[in-house]
Amino acid sequence: MPETTVVELRAPYLVMIGDVRHPLYAKTGLGIVRWRGEKVAGQLRFPGCPVDLGVPDLDVPAAKEAGVGSLIVGVAPVGGVIPDSWLAVLEEAAAAGMDIVSGLHVRLAKFERVARAARDSGARLVDVRVPPAGIPVGSGRKRSGRRVLMVGTDCAVGKKYSALALHAALLAEGFEATFRATGQTGIMIAGSGMPIDAVVSDFVSGAAEVLSPDNEPGHWDVIEGQGSLFHPGYAAVSLGLLHGSQPDAIVVCHEAGRSEMDEWPGYRLPSVADCIERNLLEGRLTNPGIRCVGISINTSSLPADERQPYLDALSRETGLPSVDPIATGMQPVVERIRRDFAGGD
Amino acid sequence: MPETTVVELRAPYLVMIGDVRHPLYAKTGLGIVRWRGEKVAGQLRFPGCPVDLGVPDLDVPAAKEAGVGSLIVGVAPVGGVIPDSWLAVLEEAAAAGMDIVSGLHVRLAKFERVARAARDSGARLVDVRVPPAGIPVGSGRKRSGRRVLMVGTDCAVGKKYSALALHAALLAEGFEATFRATGQTGIMIAGSGMPIDAVVSDFVSGAAEVLSPDNEPGHWDVIEGQGSLFHPGYAAVSLGLLHGSQPDAIVVCHEAGRSEMDEWPGYRLPSVADCIERNLLEGRLTNPGIRCVGISINTSSLPADERQPYLDALSRETGLPSVDPIATGMQPVVERIRRDFAGGD
Repeated sequence: MPETTVVELRAPYLVMIGDVRHPLYAKTGLGIVRWRGEKVAGQLRFPGCPVDLGVPDLDVPAAKEAGVGSLIVGVAPVGGVIPDSWLAVLEEAAAAGMDIVSGLHVRLAKFERVARAARDSGARLVDVRVPPAGIPVGSGRKRSGRRVLMVGTDCAVGKKYSALALHAALLAEGFEATFRATGQTGIMIAGSGMPIDAVVSDFVSGAAEVLSPDNEPGHWDVIEGQGSLFHPGYAAVSLGLLHGSQPDAIVVCHEAGRSEMDEWPGYRLPSVADCIERNLLEGRLTNPGIRCVGISINTSSLPADERQPYLDALSRETGLPSVDPIATGMQPVVERIRRDFAGGD
Repeated sequence: MPETTVVELRAPYLVMIGDVRHPLYAKTGLGIVRWRGEKVAGQLRFPGCPVDLGVPDLDVPAAKEAGVGSLIVGVAPVGGVIPDSWLAVLEEAAAAGMDIVSGLHVRLAKFERVARAARDSGARLVDVRVPPAGIPVGSGRKRSGRRVLMVGTDCAVGKKYSALALHAALLAEGFEATFRATGQTGIMIAGSGMPIDAVVSDFVSGAAEVLSPDNEPGHWDVIEGQGSLFHPGYAAVSLGLLHGSQPDAIVVCHEAGRSEMDEWPGYRLPSVADCIERNLLEGRLTNPGIRCVGISINTSSLPADERQPYLDALSRETGLPSVDPIATGMQPVVERIRRDFAGGD
């Protein structure tokens, strides 16, 4: 049996956004262009589509001519039903030999015409929600190289954005680093990854181990987090990811002003300090040297003149760099990593 | 969509142990007879089988005559391959209208003759490793009734046995109580349950919520535990089960003399006191009133004259009843539950 590895996408990409009506529903496509624009050959839009990713418009023949490896469905269908107009494009692209990449709930193989076209051309149907086969139980064995994991006070507090921004900042400062995606949007942006919340619970820490394998001593894996240890629905995913990642460092992500878990009434968010403490406590199981290197806050809900004072107060309280990845950037966290890990492995 | 519920088996049972050579490999069958003998109509053995469950020998026609609802495969095949002799029996039983119940790795539907016979007769093929469809994300909503969860310092430290023994002791003392199984052997013994470690990680606390629904105020669900919060491979399962169970009480299970995790070299077991503390810390998320009501130890590795002193020392250290469920019984834990929860909900 070949060694289990992560989901991998074939670049360059044609990002299909069809007839999406608003940028909010095209955030996967926008994210790919924002973070991995160099892998995007173009966008495929239907006539009248008001959203523009800012890359060339290509139809399937032009994309084939440009050597496109994958058509990525960069948008979610309204109401969850896949329109026939989409299927016609997916079939055409599959027939032209492009892999079809989707994060839709329904598996691509369910669409017979698309499946047949892919079979005939040798193209792959890649459902990024579906974990690879053969994931092992987590071994807890120490791996070489460094790892930094985003953790959160809740879901949807900016863990993916923080990881992407930290990865970019590390590269800019001359570090060797790889972004490791754990959710479907992150996987489409990174071009590879592990849909950790879709893994059977017995194998969740093992899946995190597969995602960030042994590496060079000075190399950093920047791992997208999921959920929160304090979330009554998703804490198991967060703990398995923490144990399997064996992070040397964590960055705590939080949204300023949010006090109760989204859609879980009665569940209050932990303080940032409590969130740090709990993650360090649990993380020591597989990496006794784990430490926190920064706090990444989405301050957009605060009045502009309260943002910096909020970050300053957190830094005073914790002794850690506190940043807003959009407003201030991740540079102070990179400096902290440089300082704390100057000695190498 | 109907409400998702647990796996349920139809009694009475015919327990098939075939030609198993040693009781060790028939422990599921032995467990069913030991704990739920009243549901067992008989055993099905092949000629020359040296193991005896101590119940009547029945062939399929006799079992049908006796009104058997399910044939349970109570043994694991040597080498993992299902012999033809077994398949012939499963086909005959399915054709006679009995549900076929299996915890084998391969799904019953893969055996075409068995599947066809079941389809024709209307019998069910029940793979107890397969979770029911439609499990929700854990809501964290407080449920009525009481719950006690077994937790452990490691895997295979007696959590299932302790839960079954505590359930029996609670019934004997006049409590209303239900054993809630979370693993395949437990499910076959209980006749229902949830294979929690086979649930996708996003839904593991939700699966635990489905397993122990709202109940009468004085009723106790006694929930079989899985893994350990200190296990690098399985802690995610343990945390999801803890959060979804919302236990009012925990019993910590441990094997005396074990200091390192089985098959995870370098991972030391926590002390019983640390195991209690961590489970209470994490358990408070969904039940702030959680407390520990006892310690259940497998003392079989100790010399006979050291067993009671070992339990006494643990009781002095923790202030909790410490028992060996086989040697001393669970009565002291029942008394502690009676005392601690005298006030009702």
